[in-house]
Amino acid sequence: MTLPARPPQLYDYDTDGTSIYRKSFGMIRAEADLDRFAEPERTVAVRMIHAAGDTGLAEAIAFSPGLVEAARTALRAGAPIYTDATMIAAGITRRRLPADNDVLCTLRDPRVAQVALAWATTRSAAAVSLWDRLEGAVVAIGNAPTALFQLLEIVAAGGPRPAAVIGIPVGFVGSPESKQALADNPFGLEWLVVHGRRGGSALASSAINALAREQEI
Amino acid sequence: MTLPARPPQLYDYDTDGTSIYRKSFGMIRAEADLDRFAEPERTVAVRMIHAAGDTGLAEAIAFSPGLVEAARTALRAGAPIYTDATMIAAGITRRRLPADNDVLCTLRDPRVAQVALAWATTRSAAAVSLWDRLEGAVVAIGNAPTALFQLLEIVAAGGPRPAAVIGIPVGFVGSPESKQALADNPFGLEWLVVHGRRGGSALASSAINALAREQEI
Repeated sequence: MTLPARPPQLYDYDTDGTSIYRKSFGMIRAEADLDRFAEPERTVAVRMIHAAGDTGLAEAIAFSPGLVEAARTALRAGAPIYTDATMIAAGITRRRLPADNDVLCTLRDPRVAQVALAWATTRSAAAVSLWDRLEGAVVAIGNAPTALFQLLEIVAAGGPRPAAVIGIPVGFVGSPESKQALADNPFGLEWLVVHGRRGGSALASSAINALAREQEI
Repeated sequence: MTLPARPPQLYDYDTDGTSIYRKSFGMIRAEADLDRFAEPERTVAVRMIHAAGDTGLAEAIAFSPGLVEAARTALRAGAPIYTDATMIAAGITRRRLPADNDVLCTLRDPRVAQVALAWATTRSAAAVSLWDRLEGAVVAIGNAPTALFQLLEIVAAGGPRPAAVIGIPVGFVGSPESKQALADNPFGLEWLVVHGRRGGSALASSAINALAREQEI
């Protein structure tokens, strides 16, 4: 196989992936205010800040006290990961997962359109109703506030209970409220949120990537 | 087919996707400082701010004067879209694309590891060397600064020239510099950047989704 020839290097930049990660995480730990986090939470927050490119995210990140342990225990035991967006699934680094865990997104299930119509809700919320291995699963919601509200309503009605909920939908309508509802949940769910409008698929997958393995890089 | 029963609605939230989009975009236009953008640029900036959940992003977004027109013309003519991350490809809404455009990511090409070794660079940068339909293409880089630097070096060496470059890698090492290099490029490339550390796959795919169709929703 003939490889293309490398063009002359015009710019001075680091080309070692591990070195880039190490420097980046060092800069984040030096700059971000991470004091209120326990160390296992800090590694999750660092990776989320890395995905956001914004140390100011630290102030909005919040964990229930048992979140890290609950998510790690579930993942090690082989729990599936449910996501509300294919982007999150694409962003999860499979080789970091401890038990070759299934990463599932039901948004393209043919039943979604029918459920959305019957329930008068969004496709994202309807997709949550099809999470048939939800009991003990790890959930990562990074797109739709309606999906997070729907999940809470399923649990409230006595439905299956996930082991951990990464609830960080992004946006202007319903997003802050949905995350506050998760953080205030009276159902005993373990949670991780980014309060306010910020959030998104990149942050959700980075949280899963951090929880999947204790080693930072 | 039996549909699941809807659990009781506990929370008060909007469940109409189009209404949520419309309200969100209205809030962004009311709050964000978009005055320095031409109207076609404004619709792109609004969608990027929506993906970030942060009206403060507006100040960091910058366009070359011909970017929107160049990207739209290329997409209508059927240009492929190259991305540096599978997350971006997953985030591009295919039904918005005007010519069923190919969305291509070469990161998992089996030649990537060899090129990365031979060129002593990252896999993301090596993957750019395999963009064999780059001439006239639309590029969306949302992850790796090294990929953006590599692209500029390919063009500088007289290689193929993309029609438009969405250059918004996220991060702490090389990211601000790579975007400044794109904005300063002396090669006549049309560009869109988010200056500073912010960026990422969600912003890159939202920019493509906005450029793909003039209608905002």
